[in-house]
Amino acid sequence: MPNDLTPELAETLGQRLPGAVTLKVEEGYLREPRGLWKGRAAALVRPSNVDEVARAIRFASAHGLAVQPYGGGTGLVGGQLTNCAPRPILLSLERMNRLRAVHRSENVLIAEGGVILADVHAAAAEHDRLFPLSLASEGSARIGGLLSTNAGGVNVLRYGNARDLCLGIEAVLPDGSIYNGLHRLRKNNTGYDLRNLLIGAEGTLGIITAAALRLFPRPARHGAALMVVPGPEAALELLAMAQNRGGVSAFELISGEGMRFLGQAGLPVRQPFGEIPDWCVLIDIALENEAGDPQALLENLFLAGSGAGLTDDGVIAQNTGQRAELWKLRESIPEANRRIGAILSNDISLPLSCIGAFLGEAGVMVAKEGPFRINAFGHLGDGNLHYNIFPPEGETRDAYMPAAPMLRKSIDALVVSLGGSFSAEHGIGRAKVEVLERHGDPAALAAMRAIKTALDPRGIMNPGAVLRRG
Amino acid sequence: MPNDLTPELAETLGQRLPGAVTLKVEEGYLREPRGLWKGRAAALVRPSNVDEVARAIRFASAHGLAVQPYGGGTGLVGGQLTNCAPRPILLSLERMNRLRAVHRSENVLIAEGGVILADVHAAAAEHDRLFPLSLASEGSARIGGLLSTNAGGVNVLRYGNARDLCLGIEAVLPDGSIYNGLHRLRKNNTGYDLRNLLIGAEGTLGIITAAALRLFPRPARHGAALMVVPGPEAALELLAMAQNRGGVSAFELISGEGMRFLGQAGLPVRQPFGEIPDWCVLIDIALENEAGDPQALLENLFLAGSGAGLTDDGVIAQNTGQRAELWKLRESIPEANRRIGAILSNDISLPLSCIGAFLGEAGVMVAKEGPFRINAFGHLGDGNLHYNIFPPEGETRDAYMPAAPMLRKSIDALVVSLGGSFSAEHGIGRAKVEVLERHGDPAALAAMRAIKTALDPRGIMNPGAVLRRG
Repeated sequence: MPNDLTPELAETLGQRLPGAVTLKVEEGYLREPRGLWKGRAAALVRPSNVDEVARAIRFASAHGLAVQPYGGGTGLVGGQLTNCAPRPILLSLERMNRLRAVHRSENVLIAEGGVILADVHAAAAEHDRLFPLSLASEGSARIGGLLSTNAGGVNVLRYGNARDLCLGIEAVLPDGSIYNGLHRLRKNNTGYDLRNLLIGAEGTLGIITAAALRLFPRPARHGAALMVVPGPEAALELLAMAQNRGGVSAFELISGEGMRFLGQAGLPVRQPFGEIPDWCVLIDIALENEAGDPQALLENLFLAGSGAGLTDDGVIAQNTGQRAELWKLRESIPEANRRIGAILSNDISLPLSCIGAFLGEAGVMVAKEGPFRINAFGHLGDGNLHYNIFPPEGETRDAYMPAAPMLRKSIDALVVSLGGSFSAEHGIGRAKVEVLERHGDPAALAAMRAIKTALDPRGIMNPGAVLRRG
Repeated sequence: MPNDLTPELAETLGQRLPGAVTLKVEEGYLREPRGLWKGRAAALVRPSNVDEVARAIRFASAHGLAVQPYGGGTGLVGGQLTNCAPRPILLSLERMNRLRAVHRSENVLIAEGGVILADVHAAAAEHDRLFPLSLASEGSARIGGLLSTNAGGVNVLRYGNARDLCLGIEAVLPDGSIYNGLHRLRKNNTGYDLRNLLIGAEGTLGIITAAALRLFPRPARHGAALMVVPGPEAALELLAMAQNRGGVSAFELISGEGMRFLGQAGLPVRQPFGEIPDWCVLIDIALENEAGDPQALLENLFLAGSGAGLTDDGVIAQNTGQRAELWKLRESIPEANRRIGAILSNDISLPLSCIGAFLGEAGVMVAKEGPFRINAFGHLGDGNLHYNIFPPEGETRDAYMPAAPMLRKSIDALVVSLGGSFSAEHGIGRAKVEVLERHGDPAALAAMRAIKTALDPRGIMNPGAVLRRG
């Protein structure tokens, strides 16, 4: 159990890190954007280089002080905030925001942990390259946090998760030692994979202070289509058909409920079909080769798909503006959900062939609990569904909130029984520690605890996140 | 330090695992293919399912017996053999050779750890899919060993290393517990990444008994070209140009020395150029889309490349036979090397932009030691070079072998000083434990030792591989 930061220790810390320590921590650091989680902190430490991070962690380690690593603060599961005693040192990487290098010929960019994702995008674009990690919070999320949570987003189908986009990391371990693993190598079999261990560990095994990130050629030509499908299973067959033809960069499932929500929420989105279909998919194509023709590819896919009974209506974007319009429709769904007001949202993933079974069984299960509306949408190509549950039309969520915990438990259990994950891209944080204890593999949990204790024997790094405090 | 397998313990082990234990271990298990490493074993255990593996490991753990995990026995760094006391139990997965399932619509195949790679290829092909891991030993290497060493091969540029091709694993941990992590999920952020920790740990943290492997669409059209380049730096510029056009599946560097060796070794390979060039690259193209034209793509690349001064001669395969001939040339180089007889071979990787500097500096360094011939070749697109050193023409290797240790040390040090890896794809095994101690990051080594001790406190799993015995 970590110790309190006494006034004497606070003074010494301030002397060790001149100009980097503030004892009055602004409210903004202690609330997450949606206001669901609040935290406390004894001090804010903002190191400006890796040596300062190491000095802060060595100090915390020597005195058994809890450390709360902090990136952009956009995490959705409370991994960035604690309100347990003792109050931690909040260690923010915001001042470590340098792009150390761009190795254009290697397609590698070296960013410090505090660099904001959008700034990485801009730097990559300046060098005519693409950094494909892309998600709603990219204007504030920082590289250290994105890697620590192994962020996902819309381009995973083609480019992988955050871990797949990182060749090497520099990190400060819980004893304050600096791990110099900032490799720019595609192949390196020299011992245990510490990079992947720290990626996704949510700051409980160390602080990622810099990363070597993979860049990609910017696709030369884009295309998009919205195709009506009979159901999620047909959508998956259409996905396989599309992948056999190449170039698929995103494949997003949209339900009729989601389409209706757009109108009910008053969002200025044009409905592409006369009658709202029960299910459709947004297919995005990106081709590296100038000679490729995304529109022709989508037209041929539609013909083949309709020949196989997998689609019977569709819209193919004829230009950049129409493609943007189709994406706007997809990207407006979370905002519509917020306006309608979900009683429960789930970030789940399933083996692709189990998605149909899940939607069927979950629908029956939810209906038993009440006349709920369900908006299931998401990155179908990754098996990642956002499965959100809403009160009946015209009713408020408050009356139905008591059903939420029960529904969540049932859905988690169903997901796990089908070989799925109860946290596809958001992580465990503090919100899902109990779920992990209930559904996690016992041998894996024991190994995780053993690793945590081995690397952080005093339990100072992000205590209570991922694993219960020891 | 593990204990000896006494006759009494051997008898009990045989009772626990009826039909799976042999006390007389055949020589074939105790030699690696090149004859460089020999091992010893007190017993051979061949479990036929994961419960038997777990029973064997629980027994070993309870009695502190060393366990030597054994796949196809094809490793090149002695990770599969030990000749230290006490003699280990050699645990071979050869009987766990079932393909448990093919999930065609998910592009996933579940293979047990003892399945031979070529059998996975065949099963994938039967389902019109591709499993892209491909290397020389694919007729005998087994999935458990391939993952434990994070194998590379010729398709890494496009599809990644073994770890990138695996969605989940089942493993028996050093305490005999079974980790059920056989996920078929593209996204799953539920705790530490044990899959990647076990992949590449060379059997020191557990035994991978099954894996969920990623399948891919079979490319519809292939193409290949051999292009003459002024040097490795121009080759890298040509690579970037090719990647911007898409479809590159391999990009292999071949030196003039390598070309000459083919003739000197008497291999029946046709030289494609009138005069052997100093450097050329083999570019392989694979397109998913039927509509793509690999030949046109390569012709355009050649025109653009020669316009930029990156190539001035080339051969583009006009049909499957010609493509096979170009590949035969590349694939005959290791055999030519064997016939010529290297005094030293190096499996190294470098940041792409440092390859030119390495070849320049290493060449000077080697020349200082004697009139050696150098054959540098390999997977240039991955930064992975096989940098092999030979005696002067007409002389035998024996006279020059004494120079080998010194040359190896100098080359390793140069590689590391340029940010490269002294083991790109073969691993550490027992051959490179000291090199890892010398050049590994101290914080990483300390973390690796802490993890090893936490998960395997008695040090029974593959003792002496990767890390020195505690």
